[in-house]
Amino acid sequence: MNPDICRERENATFNTETLTNMLDGSAEKTRRRREIESLVINDPDFQHDDPNFMSRSERYDAAVKKSSQMIMKLRDYGISDPEEIYFYKRCVHRGFSEPLDLHLGMFLTTLLNQASPTQLDTFFTPAWNLEIVGTYAQTELGHGTHIRKLETTATYDPSTQEFVLNCPTVSSIKWWPGGLGKTSNHAIVLAQLYTLGKCHGLHAFIVPIRCMKTHQPLPGVTVGDIGPKFGFEEVDNGYLKLENVRIPRENMLMKYAQVEPDGSYLKPPSDKLTYGTMVFIRAMIVGESARALSKSCTIAIRYSAVRHQSELRPGEPEPQILDYQAQQYKLFPLLAAAYAFTFVGQYMSDTYHRITGHINQGDFSQLPELHALAAGLKAFTTWTANAGIEVCRMACGGHGYLCCSGLPDIYVTFTPTCTYEGENTVMMLQTARFLVKCYRQAREGQQLSGTVSYLNEQQRLQPQPVSSRPTVVNINDLASLVEAYKLRAAKLVEVAAKSLQGELQRSISQEDAWNNSSIELVRASDAHCHYVVVELFAAKLSEISDTAVHSVLNTLALLYALHGITLNSGDFLQAGLLSVPQLSQITQRIKALLVEIRPNAVALVDSFDYNDEMLNSVLGRYDGNVYESMFEWAKRSPLNRTEVRITIINR
Amino acid sequence: MNPDICRERENATFNTETLTNMLDGSAEKTRRRREIESLVINDPDFQHDDPNFMSRSERYDAAVKKSSQMIMKLRDYGISDPEEIYFYKRCVHRGFSEPLDLHLGMFLTTLLNQASPTQLDTFFTPAWNLEIVGTYAQTELGHGTHIRKLETTATYDPSTQEFVLNCPTVSSIKWWPGGLGKTSNHAIVLAQLYTLGKCHGLHAFIVPIRCMKTHQPLPGVTVGDIGPKFGFEEVDNGYLKLENVRIPRENMLMKYAQVEPDGSYLKPPSDKLTYGTMVFIRAMIVGESARALSKSCTIAIRYSAVRHQSELRPGEPEPQILDYQAQQYKLFPLLAAAYAFTFVGQYMSDTYHRITGHINQGDFSQLPELHALAAGLKAFTTWTANAGIEVCRMACGGHGYLCCSGLPDIYVTFTPTCTYEGENTVMMLQTARFLVKCYRQAREGQQLSGTVSYLNEQQRLQPQPVSSRPTVVNINDLASLVEAYKLRAAKLVEVAAKSLQGELQRSISQEDAWNNSSIELVRASDAHCHYVVVELFAAKLSEISDTAVHSVLNTLALLYALHGITLNSGDFLQAGLLSVPQLSQITQRIKALLVEIRPNAVALVDSFDYNDEMLNSVLGRYDGNVYESMFEWAKRSPLNRTEVRITIINR
Repeated sequence: MNPDICRERENATFNTETLTNMLDGSAEKTRRRREIESLVINDPDFQHDDPNFMSRSERYDAAVKKSSQMIMKLRDYGISDPEEIYFYKRCVHRGFSEPLDLHLGMFLTTLLNQASPTQLDTFFTPAWNLEIVGTYAQTELGHGTHIRKLETTATYDPSTQEFVLNCPTVSSIKWWPGGLGKTSNHAIVLAQLYTLGKCHGLHAFIVPIRCMKTHQPLPGVTVGDIGPKFGFEEVDNGYLKLENVRIPRENMLMKYAQVEPDGSYLKPPSDKLTYGTMVFIRAMIVGESARALSKSCTIAIRYSAVRHQSELRPGEPEPQILDYQAQQYKLFPLLAAAYAFTFVGQYMSDTYHRITGHINQGDFSQLPELHALAAGLKAFTTWTANAGIEVCRMACGGHGYLCCSGLPDIYVTFTPTCTYEGENTVMMLQTARFLVKCYRQAREGQQLSGTVSYLNEQQRLQPQPVSSRPTVVNINDLASLVEAYKLRAAKLVEVAAKSLQGELQRSISQEDAWNNSSIELVRASDAHCHYVVVELFAAKLSEISDTAVHSVLNTLALLYALHGITLNSGDFLQAGLLSVPQLSQITQRIKALLVEIRPNAVALVDSFDYNDEMLNSVLGRYDGNVYESMFEWAKRSPLNRTEVRITIINR
Repeated sequence: MNPDICRERENATFNTETLTNMLDGSAEKTRRRREIESLVINDPDFQHDDPNFMSRSERYDAAVKKSSQMIMKLRDYGISDPEEIYFYKRCVHRGFSEPLDLHLGMFLTTLLNQASPTQLDTFFTPAWNLEIVGTYAQTELGHGTHIRKLETTATYDPSTQEFVLNCPTVSSIKWWPGGLGKTSNHAIVLAQLYTLGKCHGLHAFIVPIRCMKTHQPLPGVTVGDIGPKFGFEEVDNGYLKLENVRIPRENMLMKYAQVEPDGSYLKPPSDKLTYGTMVFIRAMIVGESARALSKSCTIAIRYSAVRHQSELRPGEPEPQILDYQAQQYKLFPLLAAAYAFTFVGQYMSDTYHRITGHINQGDFSQLPELHALAAGLKAFTTWTANAGIEVCRMACGGHGYLCCSGLPDIYVTFTPTCTYEGENTVMMLQTARFLVKCYRQAREGQQLSGTVSYLNEQQRLQPQPVSSRPTVVNINDLASLVEAYKLRAAKLVEVAAKSLQGELQRSISQEDAWNNSSIELVRASDAHCHYVVVELFAAKLSEISDTAVHSVLNTLALLYALHGITLNSGDFLQAGLLSVPQLSQITQRIKALLVEIRPNAVALVDSFDYNDEMLNSVLGRYDGNVYESMFEWAKRSPLNRTEVRITIINR
């Protein structure tokens, strides 16, 4: 054990195990999570070479093998709780995506949600037993976000009682589905349903794409891997072109919408029935932001505690780089954000389950707010984490560029969250649509509740011009900072709404007015999400009984809030929420908070409790022995297997 | 040719060729650059498979082969102008780094600069003929930025007239040099020189590391590849451990410092003789920032012109995504930055050559300013470009994640510039040291010149408190915006200097005061660099005679300046340089500028004149035929070479 990192742990002012238990939910949950992780880590079937030394094909092969073994083992162990399955799975794949993700996450769940009972009988058991391996084919070359314009068609032929599927253009080739390229023999295909000469929009069809015996593509099916990507080496994201592929009528998922044998169409009882999954996935991504950022902080902060460089004081030994204010200023706000997003992720998960309960009882009233919140927070947290991972990587200097640091893999595995499941800017604009609607409702006298209730207060403040509003923020008081973030959000929602109104007064269309206000609308959503995050962090503190843990998290929450103000100081000044002298005080206060956090920095990342196998980082090792490990790792590089010299042509 | 992109070109208000010539320096220079590029592109020896489909070993092999062929061909063609060599080289390697980079860029140049005439006779010709292939081994596992603490030793043994080289610890293993892992048979090793019992600090030694016949490592030498990295797949960055490796006395580079046969040491006439190369490389990196960003903008803007998605107006066809304000707001400020950095890069190159002329005549007076400027602008432009590449990638939606977009490669190839040749935060602090020194000199009544002359004015403004300074910025006038940036920089340099002073008054050491002011010091450097960039962009406009080109670049310059203000609005408000109403006007003005730029966006990226072979991007193709090309590319993916199914274990 490196003596520097030992000393860091001795100097911490709180018990890391207490905080870990809090993050897991309870001491029992921590125990169970560790038990599941050690099942995987000690399983000889899951030992593997470093993926960094493997080709893409080898990584793919190993991942498929591990996934299928995993599924069998989960049954053997009787692990069926979704959270426990998640622990097991992420440990098997060390956080990487894998070829069966869509089979497990989308094919099976879509069957469960949208198949009729007869269809479930036919398809579910073979799929559960991995005889049928499926994917979910929605996105096409030409369309991602705007799914209404997908071009693949499924035309019903009453004479044979079959659907005929076609990708009529290059842009309609299905593109991106994970597991499609090599692994799957079936796909749930989203296609425009035509029957009796009429289009009924997108519906889902189960399409066999490869022979279940030979795995050769079936007639009319062109399928393959879309080629190398930024990361995701294990996954065979694929393309699929369908030409007059016929499937029986029974292969349209018919729990809700139906096509009768004669071709007549029965529409679904509601168009919001598939809404929930989307919201759920976005809510889960918030938690992924927290994980990616907390992993990156663990690596960068542990490394900064053992790395010595330059000199602070002449003649003294080189200091730990964690002692540099510039290094603390890079890493500690991200550490604070990692905690903030962890709590926001827990809140989103809890809220989703609570509201799902209401929905099952027929109460849809809170769905729009949850939908808007999931969209905005997905964008807000993934953007912050995405940039934050790179700050952590660069805070490790040159060594952060080595794959053995773990940081390049964290980045390329995480960055797609900014784009998939709803492109972030589109997400921010969806949230803005909700905010503007609420703003208008409040102006019309409706009383708003939930996270947007501040728009009511905005109305109360209306008569008083913003510039003369007294600056009442106490920069040492978290509640007061929450209030400032709230008023900033209220102000920016108002600015966006007024921009829209101004554009409309220039008598342009609603749609052009919306487009011409995009800058303000995105800013309003961003401010709203920022407020929600600060608010939830502050709320979490009230639940913490352990004084030592409360104290250190309070420091982090203050840092998160004050750092966010300095990044957006123009907003706060513009809205008259802070004075110029207060801004200078905030910089001083931030410096004091960095000093307060310094002795607890390593303990705060230890509390995330990533074991070395999960982290897979030479720089982030728990024992701090980075240089020896890096040298040992490098010796195993495939390029070192021979001493043969490449021929240099010199004449 | 895609009709959308044709229409874009027809709608441009200026002649792209005129702008290209301006960027190249003249029409003749454009012609010659294209001539050199086509030499490479049409050379059968330089045709190659897509590197994305090759393993790292294959990429390395191909790169070594191409490099050595390149060196022979350059001689055959008689290309010897450094700029023309640069054109040829970047075309051969399509912008990637390669294993002989350090041989060409550091080994040969260090010989030229630091070898005695006798040494040149011995080593230069074999190195020029690639019999000796060398690298430059400075960085160690434990030390990068702070080179004074490098641990490798070279101890002189007068009895044999040899130096004995040792890496005494794990942390002293040489780590990172390009071409060291597999390619080189020699290295210039930086080591602490010991002679007659005394250490004389770092000196450079030519160390044979592999047998020139068998390429096997020589006795006492442990050498290899440091393993896979984030990008740089072609390069065999290596490690080198020396144990009692003996080299003749003549292998110390002795142009300046010398060790006599008896071991007595003659120190060099000046310690700044190797200063110039470092400044030169940093100045060149500014130009690389411009290239990386302009390539990324080319890809994202061309793709945005052919991609249609969603709907702006109900019933109308899907618009080009370039018509969305949110998309313009992402891309056009980056396009403006790409132009700004291009001009800053040209300025840095010109200034370097001008000041080198002065230095050769014994005038060192401008070196400190150039050193500070190169450090700060290297950090400022690489950080902006680094983040900007990722914005461009994500602006391409999912397809930006495919390697065939070209964007992942641009990112991983560029991002090391933030760390190598001086870590960016360290660079910003070096610039700050110069700024604070100038500030103090100005306060003491010295008259400053050059880019820091505004610190004189700051003194003139001193008696007037900042808050009562009138806001005189005309947001439509570039000169007025330059003035605002200048005053912001002056203000932030003052804040940093006062922070230092305040810390010192708390009677802590100079060094601790410096560390405790890092946040303000980095901000001051950032503001200084931002001012310089805006100033140089504005200055460039005065050189442009073509009215149409002047007009469109003026629009870009305004956008660059105003967008920078909104990102840092707190600074401008805090310094009393802008009023709150002006900030709202700026948002409106930015929107108007986006609309002005829109019809010229494609022409502005066309003017950078990247041919398709150099860009290697399916999304950035000149003809705009993205979907067909993407499908063709994907079919060639190595995973599609077989239809064999990976065995899924199902029991």
